[in-house]
Amino acid sequence: MSSHAPIPDARDPDPALLAGGSPLPDLRAPFRERQPRPRPGTTWLPEDPAAVEDAPLRVRVSRWMQRLHDTLTEFFEDRDGGGRFQEDAWLRPGGGGGVSRVLTDGHTFEKAGVNRFAGGGAIPSEVAARLGARDLPDGPVEFYATGVSIVCHPRSPMIPIVHMNVRYFELTAEDGSRVDYWFGGGLDLTPTHPFPEDAVHFHRTLKRICDRHHPEFYPRGKSWCDRYFVNTHRDNEMRGIGGIFFDNLRGGGDEELSTEALFAFVRDVGLAMRPAYGPLVERHRDDEWGTRERDFQLYRRGRYVEFNLVHDRGTRFGLQTNARIESVLMSLPPLARWGYCVDFDEGTWEHRAQEMLMPADWADGVPAHLLPPTR
Amino acid sequence: MSSHAPIPDARDPDPALLAGGSPLPDLRAPFRERQPRPRPGTTWLPEDPAAVEDAPLRVRVSRWMQRLHDTLTEFFEDRDGGGRFQEDAWLRPGGGGGVSRVLTDGHTFEKAGVNRFAGGGAIPSEVAARLGARDLPDGPVEFYATGVSIVCHPRSPMIPIVHMNVRYFELTAEDGSRVDYWFGGGLDLTPTHPFPEDAVHFHRTLKRICDRHHPEFYPRGKSWCDRYFVNTHRDNEMRGIGGIFFDNLRGGGDEELSTEALFAFVRDVGLAMRPAYGPLVERHRDDEWGTRERDFQLYRRGRYVEFNLVHDRGTRFGLQTNARIESVLMSLPPLARWGYCVDFDEGTWEHRAQEMLMPADWADGVPAHLLPPTR
Repeated sequence: MSSHAPIPDARDPDPALLAGGSPLPDLRAPFRERQPRPRPGTTWLPEDPAAVEDAPLRVRVSRWMQRLHDTLTEFFEDRDGGGRFQEDAWLRPGGGGGVSRVLTDGHTFEKAGVNRFAGGGAIPSEVAARLGARDLPDGPVEFYATGVSIVCHPRSPMIPIVHMNVRYFELTAEDGSRVDYWFGGGLDLTPTHPFPEDAVHFHRTLKRICDRHHPEFYPRGKSWCDRYFVNTHRDNEMRGIGGIFFDNLRGGGDEELSTEALFAFVRDVGLAMRPAYGPLVERHRDDEWGTRERDFQLYRRGRYVEFNLVHDRGTRFGLQTNARIESVLMSLPPLARWGYCVDFDEGTWEHRAQEMLMPADWADGVPAHLLPPTR
Repeated sequence: MSSHAPIPDARDPDPALLAGGSPLPDLRAPFRERQPRPRPGTTWLPEDPAAVEDAPLRVRVSRWMQRLHDTLTEFFEDRDGGGRFQEDAWLRPGGGGGVSRVLTDGHTFEKAGVNRFAGGGAIPSEVAARLGARDLPDGPVEFYATGVSIVCHPRSPMIPIVHMNVRYFELTAEDGSRVDYWFGGGLDLTPTHPFPEDAVHFHRTLKRICDRHHPEFYPRGKSWCDRYFVNTHRDNEMRGIGGIFFDNLRGGGDEELSTEALFAFVRDVGLAMRPAYGPLVERHRDDEWGTRERDFQLYRRGRYVEFNLVHDRGTRFGLQTNARIESVLMSLPPLARWGYCVDFDEGTWEHRAQEMLMPADWADGVPAHLLPPTR
């Protein structure tokens, strides 16, 4: 993917976030020359470059999402060092659409999906209420939503799976007046090999980013994550080691932050992939692994499938509506395995990996029950 | 598994059904001597061998289910020719329990699960009504359920996946009087390679068995299957090529058959595995296949996972209750794969395989749109 101008509003994203990670200089340039990927050709975004500074929030957010999408596409292409995203733009029958970018069979990533969506339509007030909307009028309202979502399944079992999304939701009444609007999003990690120090790095990075905006963002976002990404049918085993998630963040809400301050927070969350996940890719890129590690990875991926198809609200919503199925199920791993009564003896690294799958105060360091390492 | 006496009531099961298939004489005897498998040690079944002739229906059905379980375990061990079932008996906290038998990494079957359950407890009348019960009193009722269910994932992509279950359900009032009782069950096939003639064999066998009992059983059971095993989120693609399914079959119901006549039908359905599926295993046992066939099989297994986790009522019920999760998810394949926007050109055998995944009158022969073969 060709390079992009930096995110226009330079006030909030920390330059260190944009600069983090290693650029893989050996592979990047020749790859780019060899396989130039066309720029996204999407046209439905409400966008008037000349008017961005004064544009309504939804326009500014949508434009930022488009840039974030490109930035993160580039991030994963760089980290992959050889793979290439396939891009599909699609329109939703009810209005709006998306741009799905999927990297399959890359050098580093067996599958990475980087999606953007933007669109809207009429919805009943009851549905809007269920999404957490307030101050709703009687009758239908118009919604507009835009966001970026990512799932990445590395080839190496030593590199964890990562998932993130950021989204903006807005409701307008029939007369065009804005009724309600909010931000949501988050980032979480699913290791397929036990490196407790990776979880510590991931959480500390998220906490540092959150704390710059509000002291409650990290503890609230982490707790939401710990409660949500749970395979209740598997004795409440977590899908991974969590991260942060949030929804219905409004200006003047509990945190008494302005809408602009929340937008700045969401921008930092969107860019947190680089400092939170990038170093883990580099740290484990050259780790050796064999069939035992691969088998365990495929088995953990099976649990990932279970969570996404059985519990994940976004996936289930997508399956029940006219969403584009290939984008909804982009999160599923390229290969997964199921055993019967699979169990691991204490003292094995597989057992240790499973012991990581419960809520822990990762930002405080490696939890006591995971010390000393058994590897 | 050691051999068993034939099903005691010899009146109804067609002896040809019991005798069908090939016994793999070369492998069977040494395997049995080498690895004797313990007999099931389950004790909660209401069973009094001396009283079986005069026993209540639930006792006779439960006893038959136990024998069917053994018979089908033996069927799959014989067909596998080397693999061995692992048996686990488990108790459900609310009452009753099951015996799960799983064959993993066999010669012929990558995974085969043969489960039996028997048990009951109190349920609210509303829940019973949702299951289709009639003549319910106010307040709670006691249920008793017993059944056998099977899912088999062959190693070779040329051999189709098979699924079956038979079940009996009974409700009693607080005074112990029987309120309602019915049978359910079925058998369906999921090919992972296009052999339309296999689907014809499977459906003709089921039709022949059904027609012996009532002319409406096959068309009704097939139609139910065609409507149920559908991935609605995948443009209504069927999970496989269907088969028969039925529920709430009661004596004196629409078919004006006695309870005994229905029990005889259910017994034949339980034994239909041998004539309907056995010949397909033998037909394709020695077919050659490579990575292209294997890849397609894993991809079709992905759709199987989607149906079972997203749509299957039994699985979803199991996930939401305190069912034994390893038995509920025994149906998931050992390995499955997901691609992104996977598509197959017309003229390829993969395309042909997908063209089989829509309702067709298989018992009438290969449908016109699948002729002539492109292989």
